[in-house]
Order: sequence, then structure tokens, then C-alpha cells
Amino acid sequence: MQLASKRIHKGRVIDLDVDTVRFPDGSTGQLEMIRHPGAAAVLPFASDPHGADPTILFIKQYRYAVNGPLIEIPAGRLNPGEDPKDCARRELLEEVGVKAGRIERLTTIWTTPGFTDEKIHLFWASDLTTGKHAREPDEFIEVMPKPLSEALTLVRDGGISDAKTALSILFVAGFTLGH
Amino acid sequence: MQLASKRIHKGRVIDLDVDTVRFPDGSTGQLEMIRHPGAAAVLPFASDPHGADPTILFIKQYRYAVNGPLIEIPAGRLNPGEDPKDCARRELLEEVGVKAGRIERLTTIWTTPGFTDEKIHLFWASDLTTGKHAREPDEFIEVMPKPLSEALTLVRDGGISDAKTALSILFVAGFTLGH
Repeated sequence: MQLASKRIHKGRVIDLDVDTVRFPDGSTGQLEMIRHPGAAAVLPFASDPHGADPTILFIKQYRYAVNGPLIEIPAGRLNPGEDPKDCARRELLEEVGVKAGRIERLTTIWTTPGFTDEKIHLFWASDLTTGKHAREPDEFIEVMPKPLSEALTLVRDGGISDAKTALSILFVAGFTLGH
Repeated sequence: MQLASKRIHKGRVIDLDVDTVRFPDGSTGQLEMIRHPGAAAVLPFASDPHGADPTILFIKQYRYAVNGPLIEIPAGRLNPGEDPKDCARRELLEEVGVKAGRIERLTTIWTTPGFTDEKIHLFWASDLTTGKHAREPDEFIEVMPKPLSEALTLVRDGGISDAKTALSILFVAGFTLGH
């Protein structure tokens, strides 16, 4: 339970608070908490997802935190009041340049609940049609189509190491498509 | 490329820097970056992992960020210079009270590379023997054994929503055990 909250930094992407907290046993302590508005991510199928070895549109993106590129699915922060599915559609258009005829929810994950309240709503999309890119100035993105079989191999061998991306691939393979 | 870095907050778990960065196109900008030492997490099998529907020892843990409990696998921050596998063994003993006769690497994930350099090294463990708990004062943990089949259902239906935990379950089911 929150007893007090002190805003240390109000940032562009995240805010940092140091909160005074009462724990379940009645004791109190201080916790650093990164406040994040939440995000949506979408795994886009460029071919029939129920066909043999469907093609997924990944993005290869420079990540300063990683000091290099990561293979990811399109994703981005929720705007204030934005429905996560609308956010997923918007990011898919902005980052990959396609509109989704169909978009379905996978699940919602807490990225790293030890120090942030960020959750990501995961979706898959299909029936894609070409739209108009609108990347943000600090996004450096290359679209990278890969068959699901190759994506699974990359997850297994560590070539795909972004958590939301690896999880979405395994989720669609295991549950949505039942491979 | 980093041009400058300003430490905004030096915390107990994480530090916050605001860095001035040169992007791949030569432009510059500022990025908030949560510095984290990295972590290890381990999915512990209480029965033969290659047997029928093996039992996994989860923990149910109060998470302030979530304002409630999460079902997770044991995990924790790396100590300075600590080998991730040693960290996984240590957290398994501290949080679940068991020693691992066998521990194997799954993969390494970036939890949320948009704003933190945190990566988590994932392992699975088996051949467990009873050890001595040593929980930290702000950890409120209940050990919760579940068969793999139930864990998979919980991932599918959202009852397991911690990213490292959901990913580790799908990873062992899909790759390690080949279910």
C-alpha cells in the first residue's frame, strides 16, 4: 500500500518515483518505481496465419540500451486514453506501413514488475494492406519478413532476445496456431 | 552512440540516467535510460522434467508495481561480478529453499529495451534438494507447485502474466522438453 510518493524525475518516456510503501506484513520501506503509461505490441502475419509456415513481419531496430539492433515486433506506448488495440494498429502502420484487416488479442504481460508498472498488451494481426509509414524521428527501423519456423529457431538460439517478441512468437505457435 | 550521460538518480535497485545520444543517422537527442545490473531467473522442476507433466515450483509474490500478487519463477539481481548461473542457484535457494543438482541455460532476454538495459538470464533446474530459505525483508513469497500443463493454461489465459515466467514456461515446453 502506498503511504507516500515522491516524483524524482518526470521524463519523456517514463517517470521515476520513490514511494514509501506498507508491505503485506505491516512493515514499511521505500521502493523505486518507474511509471509507464503501458504499451501495445503486435505480431503481424503477412500470409495466412493458419497456412503452412506463415510469414511474420518483424522490425530490426537500433536500441541504445542494447548498443545495437534488436529484432522485434512493432510496438509503442499508449497515448492517454488510447485503447490498446488502436495503439497496436497505429504502431503497425507507423513502423511497418501496413493496416490490419484483422487484429486479435494474445495476452497482456508485465515486462519487469520489480521496478516498473509497465504492461504490454500483445496482439496478432493479419489481412494486411499497404498504408503510409509515419516513423518517429528517433526510430531507425528496417522491416524484416521471416517465416514462423525461422522465428522459432531464432528464439531458441537467442537471435531474438526481446522479451515481448520472443513471447509473442511462442504464444502464437503454441496456442493461436497450435503448431 | 553516447555523447554524454547525466546521473539523475542513484537508487537501491536501479539508476536513472539522461543520456545525450548520437543516432545511426547522425542526429542527436536525449534518452532516459534505467541502468540495471542484470538478473537471473530459474524455472525449477520438482519432478523429472522429461516425465509426464512435470511439476514446476512457482512463487506467488506480492508486487507493489502490480498492486497485488504475481505468479513468477524465482529471480533476482546479479551481484557485482556474479555469474548468472550462480545467481540463479542463489535465488532458488533464497526464495524457494531448494538446491539444484542440475541447472541449464534457456536463453537471455531484454525485458523492455526502450528504456532499460536490464537483461535476464533464464535457466531451468532439476534434481532439487532441500536447503535453507533466506528471503530478503521486503520479499513476500509463497511457493506454489503446479504441473506444466496447468502452467501452460495459465499462460494462455493470462493467469501467468509476468514476462520472464510466461516466456520460460513456453520455452521449456516448446524447446527443452519438446512437448
